[in-house]
Amino acid sequence: MNMQDLMKELSIQTPSKIIMMVIDGLGGLPDPRTGDTELETARMPNLDALAAGGVCGLSYPVAPGITPGSGPGHLALFGYDPIECNIGRGVLEAVGIDVELGPGDIAARGNFCTIDAKGIITDRRAGRISTDKCAELCKLLDNMDIDGVRIKVYPVREHRFVVVFGGGGLEPDVSESDPSRVGVAPLEITALNPGSHIMAEVAMKFVAKARDVLTSQHPANMLLLRGFAKKPHFPTMQDLYKLNPLAIAVYPMYRGLARLVGMKVAATGTTLEDEFKTLQQNYKDYDFFFIHVKWTDTAGEDGDFSRKVKVLEQIDAAIPTLTALKPDVLVVTGDHSTPAMLKGHSWHPVPVLISAKYCRGDAVPNFSEIAFINGGLGRINATQIMPLAMANALKLTKFGA
Amino acid sequence: MNMQDLMKELSIQTPSKIIMMVIDGLGGLPDPRTGDTELETARMPNLDALAAGGVCGLSYPVAPGITPGSGPGHLALFGYDPIECNIGRGVLEAVGIDVELGPGDIAARGNFCTIDAKGIITDRRAGRISTDKCAELCKLLDNMDIDGVRIKVYPVREHRFVVVFGGGGLEPDVSESDPSRVGVAPLEITALNPGSHIMAEVAMKFVAKARDVLTSQHPANMLLLRGFAKKPHFPTMQDLYKLNPLAIAVYPMYRGLARLVGMKVAATGTTLEDEFKTLQQNYKDYDFFFIHVKWTDTAGEDGDFSRKVKVLEQIDAAIPTLTALKPDVLVVTGDHSTPAMLKGHSWHPVPVLISAKYCRGDAVPNFSEIAFINGGLGRINATQIMPLAMANALKLTKFGA
Repeated sequence: MNMQDLMKELSIQTPSKIIMMVIDGLGGLPDPRTGDTELETARMPNLDALAAGGVCGLSYPVAPGITPGSGPGHLALFGYDPIECNIGRGVLEAVGIDVELGPGDIAARGNFCTIDAKGIITDRRAGRISTDKCAELCKLLDNMDIDGVRIKVYPVREHRFVVVFGGGGLEPDVSESDPSRVGVAPLEITALNPGSHIMAEVAMKFVAKARDVLTSQHPANMLLLRGFAKKPHFPTMQDLYKLNPLAIAVYPMYRGLARLVGMKVAATGTTLEDEFKTLQQNYKDYDFFFIHVKWTDTAGEDGDFSRKVKVLEQIDAAIPTLTALKPDVLVVTGDHSTPAMLKGHSWHPVPVLISAKYCRGDAVPNFSEIAFINGGLGRINATQIMPLAMANALKLTKFGA
Repeated sequence: MNMQDLMKELSIQTPSKIIMMVIDGLGGLPDPRTGDTELETARMPNLDALAAGGVCGLSYPVAPGITPGSGPGHLALFGYDPIECNIGRGVLEAVGIDVELGPGDIAARGNFCTIDAKGIITDRRAGRISTDKCAELCKLLDNMDIDGVRIKVYPVREHRFVVVFGGGGLEPDVSESDPSRVGVAPLEITALNPGSHIMAEVAMKFVAKARDVLTSQHPANMLLLRGFAKKPHFPTMQDLYKLNPLAIAVYPMYRGLARLVGMKVAATGTTLEDEFKTLQQNYKDYDFFFIHVKWTDTAGEDGDFSRKVKVLEQIDAAIPTLTALKPDVLVVTGDHSTPAMLKGHSWHPVPVLISAKYCRGDAVPNFSEIAFINGGLGRINATQIMPLAMANALKLTKFGA
């Protein structure tokens, strides 16, 4: 019996409420000039108070040394083994632009590229055409019907788009047409097992038609497809935890990830304040709230240490509107670290704080990576956060007699 | 997908360099007279400085409570599950005397014993004959050819030796002739599955011939065989990590273990200085260096607390020649603890230090078992050290999008 089976068996529905605030890219690294990380630099009296009163620790999203993408990082936070519960790249891309996939749909990542007169790829990104141009080209390719399969094409950003093959009976195990290098022709898409024969055939017919449509659209005169995938079948959070969960997120990727585990997704605005207002408005109707704050990660990715500090201070200033709701359990953590020093996601363990009436505190005085080393949670896997949140909400019964 | 599959998928080749220094039997226990361990007693300014600047922790070679031998201890450090990746005893004994095994070879551990006129074992160790005598007897038995199988016999130490059955087509699943007690006759070697029928037959013919040869050699007038094993097929470190690894070790056992995971093995001398010079000379040609320091373990095994302290101080004095190379990642750890108080390997977790630009430090002030309890790495499994070293060398790409 794995942890998910255990959750199914032990979880009970109660009126208690859990808020999980995910501060994207939360952890950092010291600025060599000061020796302080973003968290140590930011003035965060409210988060410090929560840390002083709660139980703290550091969590590994996947495993020590592994730098996670947003998909695995969030699945782990929701209690899903991020290695076992793999989401295909096409699905993640679709999810990232708010495209809802049906159970029979196959999604693939696409990019416009440039080919020469002999059909050889000269630029895999078609000179990074504008997102507007991409949208225009997608419209030209959208809504084809090939052998009864309806094909939808959605722009993503610059040369990138998503293709969704709808119709049912399709299996995604086909090869990719993107050779991942220039100087060769696009590859043929072939079935990797007998069941995906039709998918390969339809994809190749789509590619041929697209080539005809795009022929005069230099530099975007061809396309490449990869990451064919079907929506995964995860047990929902309702199944696992008997929760009625709501997701509040500005960016579509996180709304999509929440949907994949069965969360309702709230309409919200574009700012932190909008998200917190949405939480207040919906607070009485749900018992689990995933609230996603993106801007720490963006600042980290940009290598902007002081902007990340500023965002952390903004988040801290908004904390009283969270605590005013008096959730039974408040979890504050991240999906991975994004140190400004590295300008990207990293492998470093992520601060995690649980504030709850019965959490059994520790001696951690403030909210930072180093202070959390000596926290009561020690080092945990991110998949262990949900069982701890559930326990602190008194939503888990005893195991065994 | 396990961690090794993940390493295969995520690792990339880069110019960055990793040095893993394994101080054999590193951890200890307090001398009751002072209350200080060997590490706490030794003056180690260089290791203390590395600890203060790096990230520290304690690692379990196999699992809490388990005392590892050198084989499992090192395999774990190289990132191989030490329970799953079992090395047969015959192979470990062969590896320990620098005997290279071919893929079809079967190695067994042997010991000379004494039998009486009725063939009953009276001493399983033949009065611990000298190693010279052992070598002389091995020469008498060496190079037989039985049914097309070439049999090599190598002395180890005192009454112990290794037999290698070469020829191909042999399978090692046979019973042992050593009854592990006196007062009975040596056991018959029998096939434990149909495929190892020939192996059993050849082994029994070898034992019979050996008895004839040894009959006048009292007390070493017979031999016992056990631990029949084939060279295991581990993925190499090149396969897993795309590294080009070099091993530097004075003792054959560690060279052999390194070879089993695909490392090149450098010729070196007999001292710590020789090893460090070998490292300097080869530094530009490899990107991973396993450097093994044996004498801490030997002192611990001898129960010589102050000699272990002295060796630690010698190692510390040599550290600047390591750091002068400016490796991107320097790992300092051990394969297990060998407290002088216990005169042997122990189950205690082993200090581990990672010094690297992006390691995210902690508040550990010096290099000792107790200081490392509050280290940023917390308690890890030794198999997690390689992923962390790889991550810190920026040799792992992101998992998932």
